[in-house]
Amino acid sequence: MTSLHPLDPITPGEIQLAVRILESAFPGVKLRYKRIDLQEPAKNEVVPYLEAERRGEVRPRKPARLLAAMFHRLDNGSFYKALLNADTKSVVSAKEMPKGVQGPVDVDEMIEMEQVCLNHPAVKAEIEKLNLPAGMTVCLDPWIYGTDDPNETRRLVQCYMYIVAHDHPQNNHYSLPCKFSPVFDGITQQLVRMDYLPGGGDSQTTETQPWNQVSTVQYAHDLLDEPLRTDLKPYIVQQPEGASFTVVGNAVQWQKWRFRVGFNNREGLVLHNVTYDGRNTFYRLSVSEMTVPYGDPRAPYHRKQAFDVGDVGFGITANQLSLGCDCLGHIKYFDGYRCDSQGTPIQLNNVICMHEQDNGLQHKHTNYRSGAATVVRNRQLVIQMICTVANYEYIFAFILDQAANIELEVRATGILSTVAFDNQNGQTVPWGTNVGPGVMAPSHQHLFSFRIDPAVDGFRNTVYYEDSVPMPEDDQNPWLVGYTTEQNVIKTSGSASTSVERHRVFKFRNDSITNPITHKPIAYKLHAMPSQMLLAHPKSFGSRRARFATRPIWVTKYQDGELYAGGEFTNQSKDSNGVEVWAGRNDPVENEDVVLWHTFGLTHNPRIEDFPVMPMERVSVMLRPDGFFTKNPALDVPPSAQSFNQSTLHPEPACCAGSQDKHQVKL
Amino acid sequence: MTSLHPLDPITPGEIQLAVRILESAFPGVKLRYKRIDLQEPAKNEVVPYLEAERRGEVRPRKPARLLAAMFHRLDNGSFYKALLNADTKSVVSAKEMPKGVQGPVDVDEMIEMEQVCLNHPAVKAEIEKLNLPAGMTVCLDPWIYGTDDPNETRRLVQCYMYIVAHDHPQNNHYSLPCKFSPVFDGITQQLVRMDYLPGGGDSQTTETQPWNQVSTVQYAHDLLDEPLRTDLKPYIVQQPEGASFTVVGNAVQWQKWRFRVGFNNREGLVLHNVTYDGRNTFYRLSVSEMTVPYGDPRAPYHRKQAFDVGDVGFGITANQLSLGCDCLGHIKYFDGYRCDSQGTPIQLNNVICMHEQDNGLQHKHTNYRSGAATVVRNRQLVIQMICTVANYEYIFAFILDQAANIELEVRATGILSTVAFDNQNGQTVPWGTNVGPGVMAPSHQHLFSFRIDPAVDGFRNTVYYEDSVPMPEDDQNPWLVGYTTEQNVIKTSGSASTSVERHRVFKFRNDSITNPITHKPIAYKLHAMPSQMLLAHPKSFGSRRARFATRPIWVTKYQDGELYAGGEFTNQSKDSNGVEVWAGRNDPVENEDVVLWHTFGLTHNPRIEDFPVMPMERVSVMLRPDGFFTKNPALDVPPSAQSFNQSTLHPEPACCAGSQDKHQVKL
Repeated sequence: MTSLHPLDPITPGEIQLAVRILESAFPGVKLRYKRIDLQEPAKNEVVPYLEAERRGEVRPRKPARLLAAMFHRLDNGSFYKALLNADTKSVVSAKEMPKGVQGPVDVDEMIEMEQVCLNHPAVKAEIEKLNLPAGMTVCLDPWIYGTDDPNETRRLVQCYMYIVAHDHPQNNHYSLPCKFSPVFDGITQQLVRMDYLPGGGDSQTTETQPWNQVSTVQYAHDLLDEPLRTDLKPYIVQQPEGASFTVVGNAVQWQKWRFRVGFNNREGLVLHNVTYDGRNTFYRLSVSEMTVPYGDPRAPYHRKQAFDVGDVGFGITANQLSLGCDCLGHIKYFDGYRCDSQGTPIQLNNVICMHEQDNGLQHKHTNYRSGAATVVRNRQLVIQMICTVANYEYIFAFILDQAANIELEVRATGILSTVAFDNQNGQTVPWGTNVGPGVMAPSHQHLFSFRIDPAVDGFRNTVYYEDSVPMPEDDQNPWLVGYTTEQNVIKTSGSASTSVERHRVFKFRNDSITNPITHKPIAYKLHAMPSQMLLAHPKSFGSRRARFATRPIWVTKYQDGELYAGGEFTNQSKDSNGVEVWAGRNDPVENEDVVLWHTFGLTHNPRIEDFPVMPMERVSVMLRPDGFFTKNPALDVPPSAQSFNQSTLHPEPACCAGSQDKHQVKL
Repeated sequence: MTSLHPLDPITPGEIQLAVRILESAFPGVKLRYKRIDLQEPAKNEVVPYLEAERRGEVRPRKPARLLAAMFHRLDNGSFYKALLNADTKSVVSAKEMPKGVQGPVDVDEMIEMEQVCLNHPAVKAEIEKLNLPAGMTVCLDPWIYGTDDPNETRRLVQCYMYIVAHDHPQNNHYSLPCKFSPVFDGITQQLVRMDYLPGGGDSQTTETQPWNQVSTVQYAHDLLDEPLRTDLKPYIVQQPEGASFTVVGNAVQWQKWRFRVGFNNREGLVLHNVTYDGRNTFYRLSVSEMTVPYGDPRAPYHRKQAFDVGDVGFGITANQLSLGCDCLGHIKYFDGYRCDSQGTPIQLNNVICMHEQDNGLQHKHTNYRSGAATVVRNRQLVIQMICTVANYEYIFAFILDQAANIELEVRATGILSTVAFDNQNGQTVPWGTNVGPGVMAPSHQHLFSFRIDPAVDGFRNTVYYEDSVPMPEDDQNPWLVGYTTEQNVIKTSGSASTSVERHRVFKFRNDSITNPITHKPIAYKLHAMPSQMLLAHPKSFGSRRARFATRPIWVTKYQDGELYAGGEFTNQSKDSNGVEVWAGRNDPVENEDVVLWHTFGLTHNPRIEDFPVMPMERVSVMLRPDGFFTKNPALDVPPSAQSFNQSTLHPEPACCAGSQDKHQVKL
């Protein structure tokens, strides 16, 4: 019997165990590992365990630790998915996947592909034609090959090439994209085709020409022409008595919240089993998928559509954070593990950080008669990961507060995906922005799927939406100012729209518990973020592969294994086979184990200010109690006081003290 | 010649001067002052001065300091508006306002009205009927009387009465509303009528009955039944080298920004003359008006519609802040002044606070090949005021950052406006939420008007909106994934819609300056907040008084004196006579001195968790450069480093160090 909690992330020992089990199961066959990770236990098996924990009762036997593995047989190239039982050290199942199903990109594969590409004679020949000055080289980002052929079954890699003008670890090669792009077979490592890229406003391409020398737009501090600012003073956060949280393993307790920090290779950070003051709120919260389709219509750019969760994985791409660089204040880090292609466990240090932050005032009221004020600050707990997906960076944070709110914040930063563009003569395109000499950044969208598995005081909930609507012109509304709310229960699985015009909010309620004051079922609500949905045409591969991104709200009946909005295998997928399929079952979802998937995000038509590295753009979604309590749950947070906060008054210049003279001085 | 800057707020000496000028102008007449404040100089007079300052050139002669006064003549009760020249110490104009024009509420008036009401025999008789236990008293909030009679010209005050169950400076009387509401004439101080308030689901009222004793839902820390949390550890912000800003009078310099902090009685905080790196960005930014209409259709609640800027004033209601209570870190405060009814200057201490804050990461990129990362944190400058408008609190902050972004953040907190409601038997209404025994909080909206007077590299700008739209199905778009942007210039003054579906953004561009890289005019963009507009019927007084709240975007040609979206006099207004009138002039606004007014806000259907004091709800609007620079303007911000940030690692418990045992421990 393992000492691990059923929801603990995979351990290095378990990775090694999985390799041993598979080696026994495939004797004499060399396996290339793509992924070995925890398979979360079936919900009906783990909930009794979690409930016993929550209630402080004797816990039942743990569900078996299951491990999921994806690998290639090197004898015949076939791609397998296996489920292993770590307790019994046995194979539960091992299935060969149909031809054409592509697993996610892994780190070793990406590094290998870079080498294969750069060493290929055809690529070398193209580089030669650039006639680069001495010391300059070429590098590449191997890109997911978005589907445009329903019959394609090869694992294809589109290599986007860039000129490296400076031998520096942070040289910005994205400033100098090339106009050729070799396509390789990722399995045979053979060159499939040399694509030439359009450099003007249409799809026309030319043979590779000598490089028209332009300067790189750099972002690294020591490559900038201008001096750094010298007038920024230190800003230090101190918690002299330590943090307000307690951490044991992956279990966290903070300000009436308890939850488990989960980590897996695909989604990265997950919050499990979130309770507030001993009451269930959410069973599982994660960013289940995202897609980044590009709006540049010209081949081969029409294939640029990343699924950063399914194609690669936020766990795999999570940054190993460092104190004082990525995080300010008193920081707790969590590690994770992945395997390499040999099945060796690789420790991922500090991939999740957790810290408290002060977010201004939470509530205040001054009685104007007495002048007496109650002021409570908004202390928050931030659990964060930062993912680098080639050029882009995403910063994901779950932010909990003392009023029982949970926010999912996403910040987009990093470097725009760029293309070569002959913009020196003033040329522009309507689907992108010139961001430097010879370089254009195409418009694109970032659409995230936030998977919310609620447990509002129990595991059977009902999703409904509530609109604010004017009252009709009648006796009840003689002055024509009345408005009311209208409720619509989602009774069968399906999708729904957001509506700014109707101030639509979505709620999770527990029909079996009535709030004694409001006389309505207790609930949490979702402050959804109404966003422009996928712009690609419904008939396009771009849309067929990402149906989740065509609707802002999906509601499904919970089933084990249904975790990823875009389907299990997104890499070169032809159809998404994800949440739209599960929602389409027309399952009854009223007062059931229900899951809500919220698609939100950004249409990102680049600003030149987003280059060479992008000031973060922030989007956020909030979950708030709504009739879950009988009053503001943060009332018992101690008042804001100078004795506690130790703030400092800005000194007044001596010349100004008590004088109107200050008005005379000009900056 | 005054030593004051033309945009400096009014000084106490100027208030005294205004009183002296008016006393001379109205010899022998006793005046009751409602407001004495700065009248900002005409734009065409002050801009040459500001431009000379910006360029470091010899400044031209300052425009005259003008003062605006509102007062009643006590000999005949007439209401006057006067404009005074402080330099020449003379009256420019003094006009009697038409009958029925009501000035804003002032502090003395409100305090007097409370006394008048409580001392009135009819009110005492009603209180008597409540048969309150010994020690309990009644208090009131004098409310703005929303218009429902086009012929009404009296200044009316609707007094909402509450039971004070505890003699404590922070007792929450809003928990115990009464069912009678006297209406007074604010000038004669005579009782006009005793309104009785409905207590059930319809408009039926009854005579005042003995009070059915229920307990008060308290928010003050020392009135809570439950103990305070004891596990919140101190969180201290230190700037050992001081702040990064420089302040001289009301002029501020911080991280390439320069601006002037303005303060007036009506809008409170205003930002003037905002430049970045010596370039003009915005001439003036302010919250020009807001309206809070209630959705309860029952008389007299249909009259509940506050205009917190025009009816009272954010300057008047701004909290006098205190170090360590309202503000964390290194804080600079600004004071303001108002006059009392005698014309005596009243100092408003610390009504604006300014401080730096750390807002996580601003940009990051890791080169995955080298592992080398550039990390820059997001230091912000926050200029904030907190306004208490009877029961509610609003926290307004302009937040500037190092990437040339300006955010307007609004937080709503404070106490819900409540009504008595017989909810003990499970009764509910569709226009409100039961928030305690015998008390209901009606649904309402908060609609703000953000007035943006742009100066994007000059004072002639063009407003346009840009939508993201799919490309048609044609040769240019064979794979059906292309999308482009569509621009629509606003050529004549008017209004426009937001559109989530089209990802509409509004931009301010300078047609005379082309960005050398993008080949498009330089611009700033507005990240508007699409919100549900006013729900009141267009024919209702609620809507006619607040036309600004019926459209999210208004564009007008600048004219001096056109500052307030709801018109100059909102108190008991019958029509708004504001931005909709100015926009309706069909002025040419392309490449002109243009002003954009953005209506945004919240439909607030109360949660019980918003009572007895509301965890803040945050809305925000952002202004961002878009082609204003040629690259990310924050590139030169120094990197985030531990030597600078001095973060702390959370200690690992000894039991866990380097061991898998940690998994065994349960919280």
